[in-house]
Amino acid sequence: MSKVEEIQQYLQQEGLDAAFITTPDNVFYVSGFHSNPHERLLGVMVFKEAEPFLISPLMEVPDVKAAGWSFEAIGHEDTDDAWDIVKLAVQKRGDLPATIAIEKSHLTVERLERMTHLFPEATFSRIDEQLNGMRNIKSEDELEKLRKAAQLADYAIEVGCKEIAEGKTELEILMAIEFEMKKKGAEKMSFDTMVLSGPKTSSPHGTPGDRKIQKGDFILFDLGVVYQGYCSDITRTVAFGEPSDAQREIYETVKKAEQAAIDLVRPGVKAMEIDKAARDVIEQAGYGEYFTHRVGHGLGISVHEYPSVTGTNELELEAGMVFTIEPGIYHPDITGVRIEDDVAVTADGVEVLTKFPKELVIIQ
Amino acid sequence: MSKVEEIQQYLQQEGLDAAFITTPDNVFYVSGFHSNPHERLLGVMVFKEAEPFLISPLMEVPDVKAAGWSFEAIGHEDTDDAWDIVKLAVQKRGDLPATIAIEKSHLTVERLERMTHLFPEATFSRIDEQLNGMRNIKSEDELEKLRKAAQLADYAIEVGCKEIAEGKTELEILMAIEFEMKKKGAEKMSFDTMVLSGPKTSSPHGTPGDRKIQKGDFILFDLGVVYQGYCSDITRTVAFGEPSDAQREIYETVKKAEQAAIDLVRPGVKAMEIDKAARDVIEQAGYGEYFTHRVGHGLGISVHEYPSVTGTNELELEAGMVFTIEPGIYHPDITGVRIEDDVAVTADGVEVLTKFPKELVIIQ
Repeated sequence: MSKVEEIQQYLQQEGLDAAFITTPDNVFYVSGFHSNPHERLLGVMVFKEAEPFLISPLMEVPDVKAAGWSFEAIGHEDTDDAWDIVKLAVQKRGDLPATIAIEKSHLTVERLERMTHLFPEATFSRIDEQLNGMRNIKSEDELEKLRKAAQLADYAIEVGCKEIAEGKTELEILMAIEFEMKKKGAEKMSFDTMVLSGPKTSSPHGTPGDRKIQKGDFILFDLGVVYQGYCSDITRTVAFGEPSDAQREIYETVKKAEQAAIDLVRPGVKAMEIDKAARDVIEQAGYGEYFTHRVGHGLGISVHEYPSVTGTNELELEAGMVFTIEPGIYHPDITGVRIEDDVAVTADGVEVLTKFPKELVIIQ
Repeated sequence: MSKVEEIQQYLQQEGLDAAFITTPDNVFYVSGFHSNPHERLLGVMVFKEAEPFLISPLMEVPDVKAAGWSFEAIGHEDTDDAWDIVKLAVQKRGDLPATIAIEKSHLTVERLERMTHLFPEATFSRIDEQLNGMRNIKSEDELEKLRKAAQLADYAIEVGCKEIAEGKTELEILMAIEFEMKKKGAEKMSFDTMVLSGPKTSSPHGTPGDRKIQKGDFILFDLGVVYQGYCSDITRTVAFGEPSDAQREIYETVKKAEQAAIDLVRPGVKAMEIDKAARDVIEQAGYGEYFTHRVGHGLGISVHEYPSVTGTNELELEAGMVFTIEPGIYHPDITGVRIEDDVAVTADGVEVLTKFPKELVIIQ
C-alpha cells in the first residue's frame, strides 16, 4: 500500500474528510519530494477519496514530478496568496471538508488561523501520532537506505582516524571527512559534524575549532550522512597516543554500557529499559553524574525522530524501529567518551547498522 | 535600550501582560543566546514589569549565561514537562498573565493548546510584526557584524576564483572555499554553498556535484558566512576561458540590472520599485522570461528575513534595512548568470556591504 493509500485508509477509519501534511520530512515520506521551503507554503493534501495534491513554490514543481509524485502538483509564486490556491484546489474536488487532520506539532497558529478562515465550518484534529506511528516502523526499503547511510558513516570514522596526526586541528580533520563523504556521493551530512579533542570531549555538544590535537588526547567523532533521504548517526572516541588507566577505565565503562543496551533490544522491551541498561552500568562504575542525556533517539528521514529512548518512555519496541544507542561519560578532568550505534529492532532481536569496531583504537 | 526593555515598552503600550518568544533567531536577538533546540522547548518570557526568564534544555544553561543573558535561565530535562516549569516560573512572578503575545508564525498549534491549558483565562495576540519591525532596522552594532560577514563572503569568492582549474569538480572547489572560511574563524556558512558550472548555472537552485569544470563554462558561486550570528549572502558568476558574445550579453544585462536596483535604494523608495528597476532592464533586453524569482530578501540573523523585495511589496525602505539584490538570467541554452550583493539603506542612500568586483572575471 502506498503512503497516500495508508493515509486515506486512516481518514476513512476515523471519519475524517482530509489531511494536510506540512512537515518537510513528512511531505517527503508521503510524496518522495524533499525540500525546505523556508517561509513558503509546502504541503500535501490527502482526501478520503478524491485525488491528493501537493502545493509547493512554483519553481520546485518540476522537482516534485521528478521525485515521482504522480498526482497533481500545484505551484505558487511569491506574489500569489498560496492559501487561495489551496482553497481552489479543494473546491475543484467537491464539498469543502468538514473535518481536517493537521500536524499540530508543526502547523503554526498563523496557518491554522488561515485554514479556519478558508474552511470556516471545519474542525481540526491531530494526525501527528498517525504519521509518527507510520514512520516509526521502517519498511525493508527504508532499512536498506539506513544501512547504506550507516555504511557511509562507518567509512567517515575510518577517514577521520586516518587523518589524525600531531598538530592537525579539529577543523582540518572535519573538513577532510566531509570532503571524502561528498566524493562518495553523500547528499549531505545529517548534522554539523563534530570532531572534538582533549578536554573538549568532556562537553556533550562542543564545537570543533582550531585546537591542535596532541598525544594523550582522546578524539571524539560524532557524525552522520544522508543517503537517499535517510540519516545515519555514529559516534566513536579514539585515543591518540597511549591512554592513561583512568581514560581506559572510562572508555571500557561506556563500551560495556553501550553493549548492555544493545543486548537488550528486541520486540516487547520498553524504551526506558534500554536507557536503564546503559545507565546502570555507568552508575555502578561510579560515573552516573557524568552521563547527562538520554541514551538515544529515533532515526530515519529526520536525524531526531521517534522513538525517544529516555528513562521514562514506556513505549514497547517493535520490529522495524530504528534508533541510536549512545551513552557517554563526560568527565571534566579525565576525558569525555561517547560511543554511538544505530540499531534496528528485528523480529527477534537487533540489527546493528553501524559496524565500525568498538575496541579502543589507539593511534600512535 | 535593551531588546528586553523595548519589548517591555511594547507590552505596556499595548496593554499586554507578557510575551513568549520562541523562534531561535528571535531568542538570539533578545537574549544573545543562539541554539537550535529541535523538538525541545526554548523560549524567552518577557513580562510587562517582572523579571524575564529564558527556558532551555538543562545542558545549555551554562551557554545561556556565557552568552550574556543576565536574567533567570531555567533548564529542563527530557524527563521533565517543560511547560509545568514555565507555569511555575510565571506563578513565582505574580498573577497569571491575562494577555500573552506569541509568535503566531512560529508557535505551533500544539504549543498554543498547551499554553491555553496552562493559562486558561488568557487571550493570545501576535508579536511577530513587532519583532520583525525591530529586526528590520539594524543597529550600528548589527551593521558592523553584517559588514564583517560580507567581507568574509568577498574573500570566499576570491578563494573560489583561485581554485578554478580545468578538470576540478564543483565539489572540490566548494570544499576548498568552506575549509578556508572555517580557518578564518567563520562560525558556519549561512546556507549550503553553491558552486555550479556550465549548463548547471541555468537553474536558480541547482546542487553542486561531481561535474568537472571545463573551458567555456560560466561558474556561479552563491554562498554566505555567519559572523557573530549575522549572515552574508553573495553571488558572483565568472567565466572560465573566453566567453561567447551571447554569454557576455547576458552577463552585462544582469550586471546593469543589478546596478539599476542598487542605484535606486534610499529611504522612502518602495521595495517593489527595487524589484522593478532590475526587472525592467532584463525585460527590455529581451530576457524577461528567464528571470523567475524576486530580486531580493532581507538579511540579518536569518539568511531570509524581512523585508522581502518582490514586485508587489509596497513597503517603504528605511535607513537600517539590509537586504540582498540578486537578479539573474537563467538561459537554458547559453548560460545562467546571477549577481548578488548585500545592501544597507543609509540615511540618504545605500551602502553596499559586499565588495567583490562585478566586472566580468575571465579565468584563463
